[in-house]
Amino acid sequence: MTMPRPDRLWRNARLATMAPGLPGLGIVEAGAVAASGGRIVYAGPEADMPAALREAAETVDCGGRWITPGLIDCHTHLVHAGDRAHEFELRLQGASYEEIARAGGGIVSSVKATRAASEADLVAATLPRLDALIAEGVTTVEVKSGYGLDLETEAKQLRAARRLGTVRDIGVATTFLGAHALPVEAGGDKDAYIAKVADEMLPAIAAEGLADAVDGFCEGIAFSPEQMTRVFEAATTLGLPVKLHADQLSNLHGAALAARFGALSADHLEYADAEGAAAMAAAGTVAVILPGAFYFIRETKVPPIDLFRAAGVPMALATDCNPGTSPMTSLLLTMNMAATLFRMTVEECLLGITRHAAQALGLAAETGTIEAGKWCDLAIWDIDRPAELVYRLGFNPLHARIRRGR
Amino acid sequence: MTMPRPDRLWRNARLATMAPGLPGLGIVEAGAVAASGGRIVYAGPEADMPAALREAAETVDCGGRWITPGLIDCHTHLVHAGDRAHEFELRLQGASYEEIARAGGGIVSSVKATRAASEADLVAATLPRLDALIAEGVTTVEVKSGYGLDLETEAKQLRAARRLGTVRDIGVATTFLGAHALPVEAGGDKDAYIAKVADEMLPAIAAEGLADAVDGFCEGIAFSPEQMTRVFEAATTLGLPVKLHADQLSNLHGAALAARFGALSADHLEYADAEGAAAMAAAGTVAVILPGAFYFIRETKVPPIDLFRAAGVPMALATDCNPGTSPMTSLLLTMNMAATLFRMTVEECLLGITRHAAQALGLAAETGTIEAGKWCDLAIWDIDRPAELVYRLGFNPLHARIRRGR
Ligand SMILES: [Zn+2]
Ligand SMILES: [Zn+2]
Repeated sequence: MTMPRPDRLWRNARLATMAPGLPGLGIVEAGAVAASGGRIVYAGPEADMPAALREAAETVDCGGRWITPGLIDCHTHLVHAGDRAHEFELRLQGASYEEIARAGGGIVSSVKATRAASEADLVAATLPRLDALIAEGVTTVEVKSGYGLDLETEAKQLRAARRLGTVRDIGVATTFLGAHALPVEAGGDKDAYIAKVADEMLPAIAAEGLADAVDGFCEGIAFSPEQMTRVFEAATTLGLPVKLHADQLSNLHGAALAARFGALSADHLEYADAEGAAAMAAAGTVAVILPGAFYFIRETKVPPIDLFRAAGVPMALATDCNPGTSPMTSLLLTMNMAATLFRMTVEECLLGITRHAAQALGLAAETGTIEAGKWCDLAIWDIDRPAELVYRLGFNPLHARIRRGR
Repeated sequence: MTMPRPDRLWRNARLATMAPGLPGLGIVEAGAVAASGGRIVYAGPEADMPAALREAAETVDCGGRWITPGLIDCHTHLVHAGDRAHEFELRLQGASYEEIARAGGGIVSSVKATRAASEADLVAATLPRLDALIAEGVTTVEVKSGYGLDLETEAKQLRAARRLGTVRDIGVATTFLGAHALPVEAGGDKDAYIAKVADEMLPAIAAEGLADAVDGFCEGIAFSPEQMTRVFEAATTLGLPVKLHADQLSNLHGAALAARFGALSADHLEYADAEGAAAMAAAGTVAVILPGAFYFIRETKVPPIDLFRAAGVPMALATDCNPGTSPMTSLLLTMNMAATLFRMTVEECLLGITRHAAQALGLAAETGTIEAGKWCDLAIWDIDRPAELVYRLGFNPLHARIRRGR
């Protein structure tokens, strides 16, 4: 068995590998991880490590600390201009939706600010939010467009998202969300706007290679299943995988729709039913649970975790970071909310921000677990047990973050 | 008008002074703060500043940033050993209280770990939690005992709390909470334990100067109003102000009891009634609202914010940081929870972690507002408006923290 001399070796560690071949969190006590060229070449018991790997150029003694895969935030609207703090303030003072709209609030305000911003403005506005995620060990982040609602701004958002991956050491997966809301200038004609999304915006976005996936918001206040079908058919023709904001506020059978297109994920899912869960399980579609939005907009219908469990649907968790319904930049807090509000277990929470989040991005072969062959993306923690990462509120025990072996 | 040459001047700032003489947050646009010997000597419009103050030894251009008073966490159980992450994990797996008790969970486990720890152990275990608070601009923190339940350990906890104020640049207010729970060795005899608290532990704690206030847990599962009266009478005799964990899980009229003793604060208060609120208002007792515990243990009865508003009871907010019911170390998150879960306004939230929190600690003359004569404890923020501090989740925009003018 010949192995390249590894660049770096982490030893004396406890690994929560999240590897699917192992039970639970895939725990390896007295473990070691070796990396070469940014990939993991060994992950397992230190005692079983091939002798050649001990000759790493650099060896890090982890002092018994826990290592998890680098965290993955698989659903965000991180790139946007403006915030909605004033709207939040007015609402607490009892302002009505009309009053807020008159004060310039609502998604319209985010679209307006995002359209007015340059690509550089958007990058600058996003970096503090991205840095908050990075500070908690996030090594891969998904970023959606959807505050442009015209080709120029949607493309600008996605270019800004790609740019984040060059100004920070992080992997960025981009998602085109032209079908997020109806722009004011569409004059209420949803079908015409969807035709534009499917026939004009999407092909142009795809031609420039700006999107890794295509998403939409299927809801009474947004687009119908038929309209989303139109967008998904266009995406499929272009060879782009799809995702869906589904069944958040009502059951439009978005989960089943997403599954029908072999979607990477269906997201939110508060109102999804057993049929939807079964369809998702059959299609390998991940359920992305977003407790931040549930908490922030004070929803009362909890997503049917038990149905996903029973059907064997993999569950991921994400911040849904966005200015209107989830101004959240912490995956650790997201896990606590999933546990506290939805009774997801510690194991489900941790798989939800690692292995299952990678799957929701179509990156399961590359990241999300600590296994030989994958990118060496790791988070090293000052904790006594993995449950602490879920249990605490507003506490970040990250010791070190490793991306691509560095 | 002669003024000493100030040590330091912060100019080009927007001040949220929280001063009671001004409406709302006491906002001063184009403001400046000057400090001398750790105290504020001027806070107000930069244009109105006496000329002599411009000759400060050091001038900081705040670049238009917002300045608030340094934050105050007025209710914590920060000093303890061990955590309850495993108990949290088991509960999510559906374990019963008996199973958790058998696995060594519950407050008994925190008492056991705290008794076994040395004072240095306690300081070391607490520092990461304290540092999380400091990172958000906290300049004063209250710390309770209550995981000892014997004189030796209670004193050790309070000594560790005092020690925190020497190893970190922070003000620590200590509270003796011997009447937190009944220790196992009391064999169920609450009256005998309370006699010990009042007649033995409290005088010894007071003689060593370890406590700035005395607190208790008045609840069916803890101590009765009569038992708390016994403790409060002893505290009053010793000249120590009192506080009370009151009306959290049921209405034992703890709010009124606290008011009867002129308590600095009554805390939790989910079940408090109009009579209690009126009594608190008359006594000047602060209502300390603790949304972290409400959230974490999934309470459903929201504290009667409207009653406190109507009666004119000042409301403070705190983390209640403790291993069993609120493992939280973020006052920013606390504010978001108070707004989201209890509909407290942005103004109420910000006053709750500054002016009213100072009042809950009997420190209103020294800190909690940006006014001449008070300690120069400040937090400087990278925000566009104060509402952002309440609105965001898991995001820390602190630019700088100043304590005693440094
Ligand atoms: Zn979303
Ligand atoms: Zn407490």
